[in-house]
Amino acid sequence: MPFLDLKPGTMLSPTPVVMASTADLNGNNNIITIAWTGVVNSKPPMVYISVKPSRHSHKAILDTGEFVINLVTQKLTEAADFCGVKSGRDLDKFELCNLHPYKTQTLKYAPAIKEAPIWLACKVNKQIALPSHTMFIADITEIKVKKHLLDEFGRVDYKKAQLIAYQHGEYYALADCLGFFGFSIASPDVLKRRMKK
Amino acid sequence: MPFLDLKPGTMLSPTPVVMASTADLNGNNNIITIAWTGVVNSKPPMVYISVKPSRHSHKAILDTGEFVINLVTQKLTEAADFCGVKSGRDLDKFELCNLHPYKTQTLKYAPAIKEAPIWLACKVNKQIALPSHTMFIADITEIKVKKHLLDEFGRVDYKKAQLIAYQHGEYYALADCLGFFGFSIASPDVLKRRMKK
Repeated sequence: MPFLDLKPGTMLSPTPVVMASTADLNGNNNIITIAWTGVVNSKPPMVYISVKPSRHSHKAILDTGEFVINLVTQKLTEAADFCGVKSGRDLDKFELCNLHPYKTQTLKYAPAIKEAPIWLACKVNKQIALPSHTMFIADITEIKVKKHLLDEFGRVDYKKAQLIAYQHGEYYALADCLGFFGFSIASPDVLKRRMKK
Repeated sequence: MPFLDLKPGTMLSPTPVVMASTADLNGNNNIITIAWTGVVNSKPPMVYISVKPSRHSHKAILDTGEFVINLVTQKLTEAADFCGVKSGRDLDKFELCNLHPYKTQTLKYAPAIKEAPIWLACKVNKQIALPSHTMFIADITEIKVKKHLLDEFGRVDYKKAQLIAYQHGEYYALADCLGFFGFSIASPDVLKRRMKK
Protein backbone atom coordinates (compact mmCIF):
# COMPACT_ATOMS: atom_id res chain seq x y z
CA MET A 1 0.00 0.00 0.00
CA PRO A 2 1.90 3.03 -1.24
CA PHE A 3 -0.34 5.76 0.25
CA LEU A 4 -0.84 7.21 3.71
CA ASP A 5 -3.95 9.04 4.89
CA LEU A 6 -3.85 12.76 5.58
CA LYS A 7 -6.59 14.63 7.36
CA PRO A 8 -8.57 16.50 4.65
CA GLY A 9 -7.06 19.97 4.28
CA THR A 10 -6.31 22.59 1.68
CA MET A 11 -3.62 20.47 0.01
CA LEU A 12 -4.33 21.44 -3.60
CA SER A 13 -0.95 22.62 -4.81
CA PRO A 14 0.64 24.68 -6.23
CA THR A 15 -1.80 27.58 -6.11
CA PRO A 16 -1.44 31.13 -7.38
CA VAL A 17 -0.61 33.87 -4.91
CA VAL A 18 -1.86 37.33 -5.82
CA MET A 19 -2.27 40.72 -4.20
CA ALA A 20 -5.89 41.84 -4.40
CA SER A 21 -6.17 45.63 -4.15
CA THR A 22 -9.39 47.26 -3.00
CA ALA A 23 -10.82 50.57 -1.86
CA ASP A 24 -13.73 51.22 0.46
CA LEU A 25 -16.52 53.69 -0.33
CA ASN A 26 -14.48 56.47 1.27
CA GLY A 27 -11.50 55.83 -0.98
CA ASN A 28 -9.28 54.09 1.56
CA ASN A 29 -7.07 51.68 -0.34
CA ASN A 30 -5.99 48.29 0.91
CA ILE A 31 -4.17 45.17 -0.27
CA ILE A 32 -4.90 41.57 0.73
CA THR A 33 -2.76 38.65 -0.39
CA ILE A 34 -4.75 35.67 -1.56
CA ALA A 35 -3.91 32.12 -2.62
CA TRP A 36 -7.55 31.01 -2.86
CA THR A 37 -8.02 32.37 -6.39
CA GLY A 38 -8.33 30.93 -9.88
CA VAL A 39 -10.00 31.05 -13.27
CA VAL A 40 -13.58 29.75 -13.21
CA ASN A 41 -14.74 30.46 -16.77
CA SER A 42 -12.98 30.97 -20.10
CA LYS A 43 -15.50 32.85 -22.26
CA PRO A 44 -15.92 35.45 -20.96
CA PRO A 45 -12.88 35.25 -18.69
CA MET A 46 -13.99 35.04 -15.05
CA VAL A 47 -12.04 34.59 -11.84
CA TYR A 48 -12.76 34.21 -8.15
CA ILE A 49 -11.19 35.13 -4.87
CA SER A 50 -12.25 33.61 -1.57
CA VAL A 51 -12.04 35.97 1.40
CA LYS A 52 -12.83 35.44 5.09
CA PRO A 53 -15.60 37.78 6.31
CA SER A 54 -13.32 38.85 9.18
CA ARG A 55 -10.74 40.31 6.79
CA HIS A 56 -10.67 44.08 6.45
CA SER A 57 -11.01 43.96 2.64
CA HIS A 58 -14.18 41.87 2.79
CA LYS A 59 -16.49 44.83 3.41
CA ALA A 60 -14.84 46.97 0.73
CA ILE A 61 -15.42 44.25 -1.87
CA LEU A 62 -19.00 43.72 -0.69
CA ASP A 63 -19.72 47.47 -0.79
CA THR A 64 -18.04 48.35 -4.09
CA GLY A 65 -18.20 45.04 -5.99
CA GLU A 66 -14.65 45.71 -7.15
CA PHE A 67 -11.12 44.40 -6.70
CA VAL A 68 -7.94 44.15 -8.76
CA ILE A 69 -5.87 40.97 -8.99
CA ASN A 70 -2.20 41.94 -9.12
CA LEU A 71 0.21 39.14 -10.07
CA VAL A 72 3.24 38.71 -7.83
CA THR A 73 6.87 38.56 -8.94
CA GLN A 74 9.84 37.21 -7.02
CA LYS A 75 10.74 40.81 -6.17
CA LEU A 76 7.29 41.45 -4.70
CA THR A 77 7.30 38.31 -2.52
CA GLU A 78 8.14 40.09 0.72
CA ALA A 79 5.45 42.75 0.13
CA ALA A 80 2.93 40.03 -0.73
CA ASP A 81 3.74 38.16 2.47
CA PHE A 82 3.39 41.34 4.53
CA CYS A 83 0.00 42.09 2.93
CA GLY A 84 -1.11 38.57 3.82
CA VAL A 85 -0.19 38.64 7.50
CA LYS A 86 -1.03 42.23 8.44
CA SER A 87 -4.46 43.89 8.50
CA GLY A 88 -5.36 47.08 6.68
CA ARG A 89 -7.41 48.03 9.72
CA ASP A 90 -4.20 48.96 11.48
CA LEU A 91 -1.90 50.32 8.80
CA ASP A 92 -1.51 51.57 5.24
CA LYS A 93 -0.04 48.67 3.33
CA PHE A 94 0.59 50.67 0.15
CA GLU A 95 2.76 53.11 2.09
CA LEU A 96 4.54 50.57 4.25
CA CYS A 97 5.41 48.35 1.27
CA ASN A 98 6.35 51.31 -0.90
CA LEU A 99 3.67 50.34 -3.42
CA HIS A 100 1.60 52.86 -5.36
CA PRO A 101 -2.10 52.82 -6.26
CA TYR A 102 -2.72 53.06 -9.99
CA LYS A 103 -6.04 54.25 -11.41
CA THR A 104 -7.84 51.71 -13.58
CA GLN A 105 -10.00 52.75 -16.54
CA THR A 106 -12.94 50.47 -15.76
CA LEU A 107 -13.33 50.50 -11.96
CA LYS A 108 -14.69 53.34 -9.85
CA TYR A 109 -13.04 52.51 -6.52
CA ALA A 110 -10.38 49.80 -6.45
CA PRO A 111 -6.91 50.82 -7.64
CA ALA A 112 -4.33 48.53 -9.19
CA ILE A 113 -0.77 48.30 -7.86
CA LYS A 114 1.66 50.21 -10.05
CA GLU A 115 4.53 47.87 -9.19
CA ALA A 116 2.67 44.71 -10.35
CA PRO A 117 3.83 43.22 -13.66
CA ILE A 118 0.28 42.36 -14.76
CA TRP A 119 -3.06 43.20 -13.21
CA LEU A 120 -6.68 42.21 -13.81
CA ALA A 121 -9.47 44.64 -12.89
CA CYS A 122 -12.48 42.65 -11.64
CA LYS A 123 -16.16 43.39 -11.08
CA VAL A 124 -18.07 41.00 -8.82
CA ASN A 125 -20.71 39.07 -10.71
CA LYS A 126 -21.80 36.60 -8.01
CA GLN A 127 -20.95 36.00 -4.41
CA ILE A 128 -21.32 32.70 -2.66
CA ALA A 129 -21.25 32.35 1.11
CA LEU A 130 -19.28 29.24 2.03
CA PRO A 131 -18.70 28.12 5.63
CA SER A 132 -15.47 30.06 6.33
CA HIS A 133 -15.03 32.21 3.22
CA THR A 134 -17.04 34.30 0.78
CA MET A 135 -16.31 33.40 -2.81
CA PHE A 136 -16.42 36.48 -5.04
CA ILE A 137 -16.83 35.42 -8.67
CA ALA A 138 -15.95 38.27 -11.00
CA ASP A 139 -15.78 39.41 -14.60
CA ILE A 140 -12.44 40.72 -15.79
CA THR A 141 -13.01 44.21 -17.17
CA GLU A 142 -9.44 45.24 -17.96
CA ILE A 143 -5.94 43.80 -18.04
CA LYS A 144 -2.74 45.80 -18.09
CA VAL A 145 0.79 44.47 -18.51
CA LYS A 146 4.22 46.09 -18.26
CA LYS A 147 5.51 46.69 -21.77
CA HIS A 148 8.83 44.91 -21.27
CA LEU A 149 7.02 41.61 -20.59
CA LEU A 150 5.63 41.33 -24.12
CA ASP A 151 7.45 39.29 -26.73
CA GLU A 152 7.82 40.18 -30.41
CA PHE A 153 4.27 38.91 -31.10
CA GLY A 154 2.70 41.01 -28.36
CA ARG A 155 2.20 38.00 -26.09
CA VAL A 156 3.15 37.92 -22.44
CA ASP A 157 6.52 36.22 -21.90
CA TYR A 158 5.94 34.54 -18.56
CA LYS A 159 9.58 33.59 -18.24
CA LYS A 160 10.42 37.28 -17.99
CA ALA A 161 7.64 37.97 -15.48
CA GLN A 162 9.16 35.68 -12.81
CA LEU A 163 5.87 35.05 -11.05
CA ILE A 164 5.68 32.98 -7.90
CA ALA A 165 3.46 30.10 -6.74
CA TYR A 166 2.28 29.06 -3.29
CA GLN A 167 2.50 25.62 -1.74
CA HIS A 168 0.82 25.12 1.63
CA GLY A 169 2.47 28.01 3.45
CA GLU A 170 5.53 28.56 1.28
CA TYR A 171 6.31 30.79 -1.71
CA TYR A 172 8.14 29.25 -4.66
CA ALA A 173 9.88 30.60 -7.72
CA LEU A 174 9.05 28.96 -11.05
CA ALA A 175 11.79 27.20 -12.97
CA ASP A 176 12.02 25.66 -16.41
CA CYS A 177 9.21 25.39 -18.91
CA LEU A 178 8.55 21.64 -19.30
CA GLY A 179 6.29 21.80 -22.34
CA PHE A 180 3.39 23.56 -24.00
CA PHE A 181 -0.28 22.57 -24.14
CA GLY A 182 -0.39 19.78 -26.72
CA PHE A 183 3.31 18.87 -26.64
CA SER A 184 2.52 15.22 -25.88
CA ILE A 185 0.94 14.78 -29.31
CA ALA A 186 2.92 17.38 -31.29
CA SER A 187 4.87 16.48 -34.44
CA PRO A 188 8.69 16.40 -34.24
CA ASP A 189 8.81 19.63 -36.28
CA VAL A 190 6.53 21.51 -33.93
CA LEU A 191 8.38 20.15 -30.91
CA LYS A 192 11.72 21.26 -32.31
CA ARG A 193 10.45 24.76 -33.07
CA ARG A 194 8.54 25.37 -29.85
CA MET A 195 10.75 23.68 -27.27
CA LYS A 196 13.79 25.71 -28.32
CA LYS A 197 12.43 28.91 -26.84
CA MET B 1 2.76 55.25 -18.74
CA PRO B 2 4.36 51.89 -17.90
CA PHE B 3 1.41 49.60 -18.81
CA LEU B 4 -0.11 48.35 -22.05
CA ASP B 5 -3.67 47.10 -22.48
CA LEU B 6 -4.38 43.44 -23.08
CA LYS B 7 -7.74 42.11 -24.16
CA PRO B 8 -9.35 40.56 -21.06
CA GLY B 9 -8.43 36.86 -20.97
CA THR B 10 -7.58 34.11 -18.53
CA MET B 11 -4.26 35.68 -17.56
CA LEU B 12 -4.30 34.80 -13.86
CA SER B 13 -1.00 33.02 -13.41
CA PRO B 14 0.49 30.69 -12.34
CA THR B 15 -2.40 28.25 -11.86
CA PRO B 16 -2.39 24.68 -10.63
CA VAL B 17 -2.62 21.88 -13.17
CA VAL B 18 -4.22 18.67 -11.94
CA MET B 19 -5.56 15.44 -13.35
CA ALA B 20 -9.19 14.96 -12.33
CA SER B 21 -10.17 11.29 -12.43
CA THR B 22 -13.80 10.27 -12.80
CA ALA B 23 -16.01 7.28 -13.53
CA ASP B 24 -19.43 7.19 -15.13
CA LEU B 25 -22.36 5.24 -13.69
CA ASN B 26 -21.23 2.18 -15.67
CA GLY B 27 -17.77 2.26 -14.12
CA ASN B 28 -15.92 3.62 -17.14
CA ASN B 29 -12.95 5.57 -15.82
CA ASN B 30 -11.59 8.75 -17.35
CA ILE B 31 -9.03 11.47 -16.66
CA ILE B 32 -9.32 15.16 -17.56
CA THR B 33 -6.53 17.63 -16.99
CA ILE B 34 -7.65 20.90 -15.48
CA ALA B 35 -5.99 24.22 -14.70
CA TRP B 36 -9.23 25.94 -13.69
CA THR B 37 -9.13 24.62 -10.12
CA GLY B 38 -8.40 26.02 -6.67
CA VAL B 39 -9.27 26.13 -3.00
CA VAL B 40 -12.48 28.04 -2.27
CA ASN B 41 -12.93 27.46 1.47
CA SER B 42 -10.57 26.59 4.32
CA LYS B 43 -12.84 25.15 7.04
CA PRO B 44 -13.99 22.68 5.92
CA PRO B 45 -11.54 22.39 3.01
CA MET B 46 -13.40 22.86 -0.27
CA VAL B 47 -12.15 23.04 -3.84
CA TYR B 48 -13.61 23.60 -7.29
CA ILE B 49 -12.98 22.48 -10.82
CA SER B 50 -14.49 24.24 -13.84
CA VAL B 51 -15.36 21.93 -16.74
CA LYS B 52 -16.84 22.66 -20.16
CA PRO B 53 -20.18 20.86 -20.68
CA SER B 54 -18.81 19.48 -23.97
CA ARG B 55 -16.06 17.54 -22.18
CA HIS B 56 -16.59 13.80 -21.79
CA SER B 57 -16.04 13.90 -18.00
CA HIS B 58 -18.74 16.53 -17.47
CA LYS B 59 -21.60 14.03 -17.51
CA ALA B 60 -19.81 11.58 -15.23
CA ILE B 61 -19.31 14.31 -12.62
CA LEU B 62 -22.92 15.48 -12.98
CA ASP B 63 -24.24 11.90 -12.65
CA THR B 64 -22.04 10.68 -9.80
CA GLY B 65 -21.20 13.92 -7.98
CA GLU B 66 -17.64 12.62 -7.62
CA PHE B 67 -14.13 13.32 -8.86
CA VAL B 68 -10.59 12.96 -7.57
CA ILE B 69 -7.99 15.72 -7.87
CA ASN B 70 -4.60 14.12 -8.55
CA LEU B 71 -1.60 16.44 -8.21
CA VAL B 72 0.88 16.37 -11.08
CA THR B 73 4.64 15.88 -10.80
CA GLN B 74 7.30 16.73 -13.38
CA LYS B 75 7.34 13.05 -14.34
CA LEU B 76 3.60 13.05 -14.98
CA THR B 77 3.66 16.18 -17.18
CA GLU B 78 3.43 14.34 -20.49
CA ALA B 79 0.54 12.18 -19.26
CA ALA B 80 -1.22 15.28 -17.92
CA ASP B 81 -0.83 17.04 -21.25
CA PHE B 82 -2.19 14.00 -23.11
CA CYS B 83 -5.23 13.82 -20.78
CA GLY B 84 -5.86 17.51 -21.48
CA VAL B 85 -5.83 17.36 -25.27
CA LYS B 86 -7.46 13.97 -25.94
CA SER B 87 -11.05 12.95 -25.20
CA GLY B 88 -12.07 9.93 -23.14
CA ARG B 89 -14.89 9.41 -25.64
CA ASP B 90 -12.34 7.99 -28.06
CA LEU B 91 -9.79 6.19 -25.93
CA ASP B 92 -8.84 4.80 -22.53
CA LYS B 93 -6.49 7.38 -21.03
CA PHE B 94 -5.53 5.22 -18.04
CA GLU B 95 -4.33 2.48 -20.35
CA LEU B 96 -2.64 4.73 -22.91
CA CYS B 97 -0.76 6.70 -20.25
CA ASN B 98 0.11 3.58 -18.27
CA LEU B 99 -1.73 4.93 -15.26
CA HIS B 100 -3.73 2.78 -12.84
CA PRO B 101 -7.07 3.46 -11.14
CA TYR B 102 -6.86 3.26 -7.35
CA LYS B 103 -9.94 2.64 -5.20
CA THR B 104 -10.73 5.41 -2.73
CA GLN B 105 -12.33 4.72 0.66
CA THR B 106 -14.92 7.49 0.49
CA LEU B 107 -16.15 7.58 -3.12
CA LYS B 108 -18.42 5.07 -4.83
CA TYR B 109 -17.45 5.66 -8.44
CA ALA B 110 -14.44 7.87 -9.18
CA PRO B 111 -11.02 6.24 -8.75
CA ALA B 112 -7.79 8.02 -7.87
CA ILE B 113 -4.64 7.64 -9.97
CA LYS B 114 -2.16 5.29 -8.33
CA GLU B 115 0.82 7.11 -9.86
CA ALA B 116 -0.15 10.53 -8.38
CA PRO B 117 1.96 11.72 -5.44
CA ILE B 118 -1.04 13.17 -3.59
CA TRP B 119 -4.73 12.96 -4.34
CA LEU B 120 -7.91 14.54 -2.97
CA ALA B 121 -11.22 12.68 -3.21
CA CYS B 122 -14.03 15.17 -3.80
CA LYS B 123 -17.83 15.10 -3.49
CA VAL B 124 -19.74 17.83 -5.31
CA ASN B 125 -21.51 20.16 -2.93
CA LYS B 126 -22.73 22.84 -5.36
CA GLN B 127 -22.62 23.35 -9.07
CA ILE B 128 -22.76 26.71 -10.76
CA ALA B 129 -23.50 27.10 -14.47
CA LEU B 130 -21.26 29.84 -15.87
CA PRO B 131 -21.32 30.90 -19.52
CA SER B 132 -18.72 28.45 -20.89
CA HIS B 133 -17.97 26.20 -17.91
CA THR B 134 -19.71 24.44 -15.04
CA MET B 135 -18.05 25.12 -11.73
CA PHE B 136 -18.21 22.07 -9.46
CA ILE B 137 -17.61 23.10 -5.86
CA ALA B 138 -16.75 20.11 -3.72
CA ASP B 139 -15.97 18.89 -0.24
CA ILE B 140 -12.73 16.97 0.22
CA THR B 141 -13.58 13.62 1.75
CA GLU B 142 -10.16 11.96 1.76
CA ILE B 143 -6.53 12.77 1.02
CA LYS B 144 -3.79 10.25 0.38
CA VAL B 145 -0.08 10.93 -0.01
CA LYS B 146 2.87 8.74 -0.99
CA LYS B 147 4.78 7.86 2.14
CA HIS B 148 8.17 9.04 0.89
CA LEU B 149 6.85 12.63 0.57
CA LEU B 150 6.35 13.06 4.31
CA ASP B 151 9.04 14.72 6.41
CA GLU B 152 10.07 13.70 9.92
CA PHE B 153 7.05 15.55 11.37
CA GLY B 154 4.54 13.80 9.10
CA ARG B 155 4.08 16.90 6.94
CA VAL B 156 4.20 16.88 3.16
CA ASP B 157 7.59 17.99 1.86
CA TYR B 158 6.58 19.82 -1.31
CA LYS B 159 10.18 20.13 -2.44
CA LYS B 160 10.28 16.36 -2.80
CA ALA B 161 6.95 16.20 -4.63
CA GLN B 162 8.21 18.24 -7.61
CA LEU B 163 4.76 19.47 -8.59
CA ILE B 164 4.23 21.60 -11.68
CA ALA B 165 2.36 24.84 -12.38
CA TYR B 166 0.63 26.14 -15.50
CA GLN B 167 1.11 29.53 -17.12
CA HIS B 168 -1.18 30.38 -20.04
CA GLY B 169 -0.50 27.28 -22.13
CA GLU B 170 2.82 26.15 -20.68
CA TYR B 171 3.84 23.77 -17.90
CA TYR B 172 6.54 24.91 -15.45
CA ALA B 173 8.64 23.22 -12.83
CA LEU B 174 8.88 24.90 -9.45
CA ALA B 175 12.24 26.13 -8.21
CA ASP B 176 13.50 27.52 -4.94
CA CYS B 177 11.41 28.24 -1.88
CA LEU B 178 11.50 32.03 -1.43
CA GLY B 179 10.00 32.19 2.03
CA PHE B 180 7.27 30.95 4.32
CA PHE B 181 3.96 32.57 5.26
CA GLY B 182 4.92 35.30 7.75
CA PHE B 183 8.60 35.53 6.83
CA SER B 184 8.32 39.26 6.20
CA ILE B 185 7.65 39.91 9.88
CA ALA B 186 9.54 36.97 11.43
CA SER B 187 12.26 37.46 14.02
CA PRO B 188 15.88 36.88 13.00
CA ASP B 189 15.89 33.63 15.02
CA VAL B 190 12.84 32.23 13.26
CA LEU B 191 14.19 33.31 9.90
CA LYS B 192 17.49 31.61 10.55
CA ARG B 193 15.83 28.37 11.63
CA ARG B 194 13.18 28.15 8.92
CA MET B 195 15.00 29.48 5.87
CA LYS B 196 17.79 26.95 6.28
CA LYS B 197 15.62 24.02 5.15
